[in-house]
Amino acid sequence: MKKLINAPADVVAEAMQGLARAHPALVRVHFAPLYVVRADAPRPGKVAVLSGGGSGHEPLHSGFVGRGMLDAACPGSVFTAPTPDQIYAAARAVDGGAGVLFIVKNYTGDVLNFDLAAELCQAEGIPVGRVLIQDDVAVRAQEGTAGRRGVGTTVLAEKICGAAAESGLSLPELVELGEKVSRQGRSMGVAVSPCVVPTVGRPTFLLGDTEMELGVGIHGEPGRERAALRCADAVTEMLAAHILEDLPFRSGSQILALVNGMGGTPLLELYIVYRSLAELCDARGIVVCRNLIGNYVTALEMAGCSITLLEVDAELLHWWDAPVHTPALRW
Amino acid sequence: MKKLINAPADVVAEAMQGLARAHPALVRVHFAPLYVVRADAPRPGKVAVLSGGGSGHEPLHSGFVGRGMLDAACPGSVFTAPTPDQIYAAARAVDGGAGVLFIVKNYTGDVLNFDLAAELCQAEGIPVGRVLIQDDVAVRAQEGTAGRRGVGTTVLAEKICGAAAESGLSLPELVELGEKVSRQGRSMGVAVSPCVVPTVGRPTFLLGDTEMELGVGIHGEPGRERAALRCADAVTEMLAAHILEDLPFRSGSQILALVNGMGGTPLLELYIVYRSLAELCDARGIVVCRNLIGNYVTALEMAGCSITLLEVDAELLHWWDAPVHTPALRW
Repeated sequence: MKKLINAPADVVAEAMQGLARAHPALVRVHFAPLYVVRADAPRPGKVAVLSGGGSGHEPLHSGFVGRGMLDAACPGSVFTAPTPDQIYAAARAVDGGAGVLFIVKNYTGDVLNFDLAAELCQAEGIPVGRVLIQDDVAVRAQEGTAGRRGVGTTVLAEKICGAAAESGLSLPELVELGEKVSRQGRSMGVAVSPCVVPTVGRPTFLLGDTEMELGVGIHGEPGRERAALRCADAVTEMLAAHILEDLPFRSGSQILALVNGMGGTPLLELYIVYRSLAELCDARGIVVCRNLIGNYVTALEMAGCSITLLEVDAELLHWWDAPVHTPALRW
Repeated sequence: MKKLINAPADVVAEAMQGLARAHPALVRVHFAPLYVVRADAPRPGKVAVLSGGGSGHEPLHSGFVGRGMLDAACPGSVFTAPTPDQIYAAARAVDGGAGVLFIVKNYTGDVLNFDLAAELCQAEGIPVGRVLIQDDVAVRAQEGTAGRRGVGTTVLAEKICGAAAESGLSLPELVELGEKVSRQGRSMGVAVSPCVVPTVGRPTFLLGDTEMELGVGIHGEPGRERAALRCADAVTEMLAAHILEDLPFRSGSQILALVNGMGGTPLLELYIVYRSLAELCDARGIVVCRNLIGNYVTALEMAGCSITLLEVDAELLHWWDAPVHTPALRW
């Protein structure tokens, strides 16, 4: 294992210490239990937007805490859901009296722990709404009861709901908005090399020298198919085909396209994938109105990428374009 | 070689096609010869800021074209200097009558080709000024005539000179400002795993399972020392010690700190390095006024990082804080 870390067990806490040192005007970090909040939290009268999940996907979620996006992020251990007490403590810290919106990626541990935290909050009179992100089309509905994993659409939901919360939307309005994003977003990823969890010390999976994992999850979960690595155009077409037919996206659809690096893939390659994707959309009459290209939902140093497409309208574009100022996203 | 690319020879052109598709409001790309310019170039009366170099370091330089930073970037082949005609054509495209500032990283090919392009420009009556970045303290002065390599300080010079050019500074003023940044910036990097140039197909160097290359260059050039990989705190201290003693940075110095990922290192690790660096600066009475943490000067998918420290004053902070809107840097 070759990583720039100290003790493997300290990775998350030390990185969050670094985050706190680097961005004191934007975020504050609480360490026991661990959560990251906006520097100006709580904001009276504003619904707080809270997300979280296993660490190792940075900048998700801690890098998106700040004005116009998340009020709080709860980082679990690497690839491990945050605990209910962590989420509950963070919710209490950011509640400004208008309730808290939980944005939850659909993994069993996350769903369970966010639900437990919601119960704790509600018992104390803090209203909680929940948006579940389950956008990974690599997972077929019949494969298990857990359903589809939450991946790239999470970033878009955090940005859009964060902007709307900043503008004063109520908790029920934000739940509705977040559910709309969740309904209209679809993703799929590919890995060409695995990652190593610091406390484990060996790769999450093994791939041959000419293989790729198509439909991989952000923790290295197996995908739809172990296949021979093909050229970027072919890989992009495979990912896009599954995504486009799922919603389905149709000619005339307006979309936001996220080409997301898994952590170990150069930006040069992400732009090659975006080029292919834009051409595929052109050919189908789908209009890419906005794009985001870079490392947003990573799996440590995994090499590969994911594509997320979100069908947008004037409402979603309005919130997407609204100002944001966080460590990792700013305009 | 496991990369999301099509033909290896097409990597740069296709990525630039993706860049053009993704950011039409910010940049335009010219393909024969290849260069990237601001969408609104040329800007009459404004000095144009131009940089370039081998590709594979993205977002440097093409990701920094836009308002408040570069007017033009000339991407060479991967790890290969751009040609004089490329640079000359880009300079002509962005000259607004006030001349062109070349920001050049100190590598033999870059220096030669930018100098030839400057002669071509000057023969045509386009005034050219040059700032040479040579900030890599891993290279000892006596090792050769080429001198120190240009690395992380390049980003800072592009931002600072870009902001000043946007505000109307003259070419001689910008040369002076850029030289000040160059004089006051120092960098050093470390690699824990190599990268693969697409047209070569094998790693640029080999490292044992427990080795690191301390002082590595951004093309995988050997550094000061092949050493046993140590913990992040120890590695950060080694890099920082060389950097701090070189200027030297002293108690009371105000600095901008860049913790730069080489491409394949998770953000989590970069924040752990930043934490160490901030503590080291605290202990020496050095004040970190600004920071930038992420992948800015990469070496494809190399794993590792570099640290750049720039001694700042009110003037440099003013230009650093000025608005910028490029594909990769925005505030």
